[in-house]
Amino acid sequence: MKIAGTTTRSIWLEEDGWSVGIFDQRALPWSIERLVLRKMEDAAQAIASMATRGAPLIGAVAAYGLALALRHDSSDAALEEAHRHLAATRPTAVNLRWALDRVAAHVRPLPEAQRAQAAYAEAARLCDEDEAMNRAIGAAGLPLIRQIAARKPGEPVNILMHCNPGWLATVDWGTATAPIYQAHDEGIPVHVWVDETRPRNQGALTAFELAEHGVPHSYVVDNAGGLLMQQGLVDMVILGTDRVTANGDVCNKIGTYLKALAAQAHDVPFYVALPASTYDPATPDGASVPIEERSGVEVSTVTGPDKDGVMRQVSVTASPVRNPAFDITPAALVTAYVTDRGVLRGASALREAMGTAMATAD
Amino acid sequence: MKIAGTTTRSIWLEEDGWSVGIFDQRALPWSIERLVLRKMEDAAQAIASMATRGAPLIGAVAAYGLALALRHDSSDAALEEAHRHLAATRPTAVNLRWALDRVAAHVRPLPEAQRAQAAYAEAARLCDEDEAMNRAIGAAGLPLIRQIAARKPGEPVNILMHCNPGWLATVDWGTATAPIYQAHDEGIPVHVWVDETRPRNQGALTAFELAEHGVPHSYVVDNAGGLLMQQGLVDMVILGTDRVTANGDVCNKIGTYLKALAAQAHDVPFYVALPASTYDPATPDGASVPIEERSGVEVSTVTGPDKDGVMRQVSVTASPVRNPAFDITPAALVTAYVTDRGVLRGASALREAMGTAMATAD
Repeated sequence: MKIAGTTTRSIWLEEDGWSVGIFDQRALPWSIERLVLRKMEDAAQAIASMATRGAPLIGAVAAYGLALALRHDSSDAALEEAHRHLAATRPTAVNLRWALDRVAAHVRPLPEAQRAQAAYAEAARLCDEDEAMNRAIGAAGLPLIRQIAARKPGEPVNILMHCNPGWLATVDWGTATAPIYQAHDEGIPVHVWVDETRPRNQGALTAFELAEHGVPHSYVVDNAGGLLMQQGLVDMVILGTDRVTANGDVCNKIGTYLKALAAQAHDVPFYVALPASTYDPATPDGASVPIEERSGVEVSTVTGPDKDGVMRQVSVTASPVRNPAFDITPAALVTAYVTDRGVLRGASALREAMGTAMATAD
Repeated sequence: MKIAGTTTRSIWLEEDGWSVGIFDQRALPWSIERLVLRKMEDAAQAIASMATRGAPLIGAVAAYGLALALRHDSSDAALEEAHRHLAATRPTAVNLRWALDRVAAHVRPLPEAQRAQAAYAEAARLCDEDEAMNRAIGAAGLPLIRQIAARKPGEPVNILMHCNPGWLATVDWGTATAPIYQAHDEGIPVHVWVDETRPRNQGALTAFELAEHGVPHSYVVDNAGGLLMQQGLVDMVILGTDRVTANGDVCNKIGTYLKALAAQAHDVPFYVALPASTYDPATPDGASVPIEERSGVEVSTVTGPDKDGVMRQVSVTASPVRNPAFDITPAALVTAYVTDRGVLRGASALREAMGTAMATAD
């Protein structure tokens, strides 16, 4: 997607052909800063410090981190040590471990002299696959936007989005943003209502992405979605997910469920975008998903630049805080799942299409 | 209610018997600062600067402002000038004008020498009436909490609240908080989920109030309510309203409607607390209520103390912002209206009980 006027991925090889470039996401949306990773430790630091974020992107950074390690020392011992070190940067990130396992398994049988180059190639393939998967999600979702546009010629399609299922969390396109970028790129007028997504305000990242790519949008508080639907100002909701269970229930950022209820009340289609890897047939339903409770500091403080551009953290309450991070949207509230395997309506369609995916992915 | 360990109203006469004390609400919830109003201009400034806030309390401050003016000069000209000046401090505040009209009408027929004293007496009556009205709302709502408590002995009644329908916006008790304070004072264990209420975070005031009075509570982001109901952690919702229309639709702070939808989905009773003066039989339904759109700065910035206690304003987004301030909750989602005339179920009960109120209030 575009950033500062240039089309780019969120991770790339620098001109030297071996060092790895990423955006420092801690600086977004306030300033666009790039980091160059020249050794394995740079990649580990970038992940641990959350300079890079988003499950697919973390996987890609880790894969290149392994390549950087092998460039320096391609022995068995170095490979295992780099794998261990990179995996420990974000212990709960499933994608991170999956990407490391994949690259390590690919290079382990090879002679030491070939390992670094093979790791670069595998990391590049992993990035290409992520981009292709998101592009496929976009292609599946694009007709849904096109159909609404056809019903209201000359008017923008109003799309409500929660959190940041965007390209900055992936290699490119994003998941729920992919159909929107593709619609915009083909000239369909769209306008995105970007939920702030308290407490971590990921909406600010989504708004930044959309602004950089030139997609019209408005930032609103999480409370606004119900009124916007009452006023007929939302044509569809599309958002991402952390996990879809066997029965089609959707675990996603806290507040998703409230929007799903409002969408149902106003007959607004509610779409959940996901790649096959996010479908979790081993968990029967949403009630079985443990809800992560995160630090209260995320709720009780807000960080941003003051009028002089100095980043400051301010308190919003001194009271006791609770901070559950996710909620469950029952499958019955989901109009369709927009996936790299097409638009799937209902849990059984999802199971059929995705069951195969999981079998081959493992 | 209690603040800093002392039971107090939100407005009082100082020991001299004529100057007027209020809390500086701009400093809340971070520090408790009192202001002493010694002349009409002090009252006007307190209202205009939002040192005092909440429709009933603004009315009370303005009423005392008129008394302070008359104490200095009780001529007809001074009375009219003070009325005009105080009314202009918040041009759209209906309660402000109503309180000024009432005090002015009361003193205008009197000899100049009696006017100041009569104005003080009328302002005091107005405060007493506001307290009595809120106490009556509390008495009406208390049995609703008591019934839930009886069903779960030893466990707290979990109550979800949005915005600040609290005593700091009134003379005492608040509207939706009144039943909660009365339940707490009679020893019923309650726990309040306090919605943050972006963009202006009035939840921080509610949490402060509850903390000062010793009522257990937790501050949560506006996104959390749906999950809390999914988890069975909400026994009832109670909140205030800016206006209830003839058919029972509820205009209240943005985000109220999303909580009402969630309450319906989980069979959680949804109560709206209001005094008779908030019922608006002249407006047929919620669709007829114009929705105020406020400055985007409320959304794009957050103000609070930094780690050194210095108040700072930080930005949360640089994107275009929309800031509708209210939404409409259809009457069908309201379990009952908790009023100074009892618990009223359905629009016709409301119309019957409140129709009389409006006739006598005008």
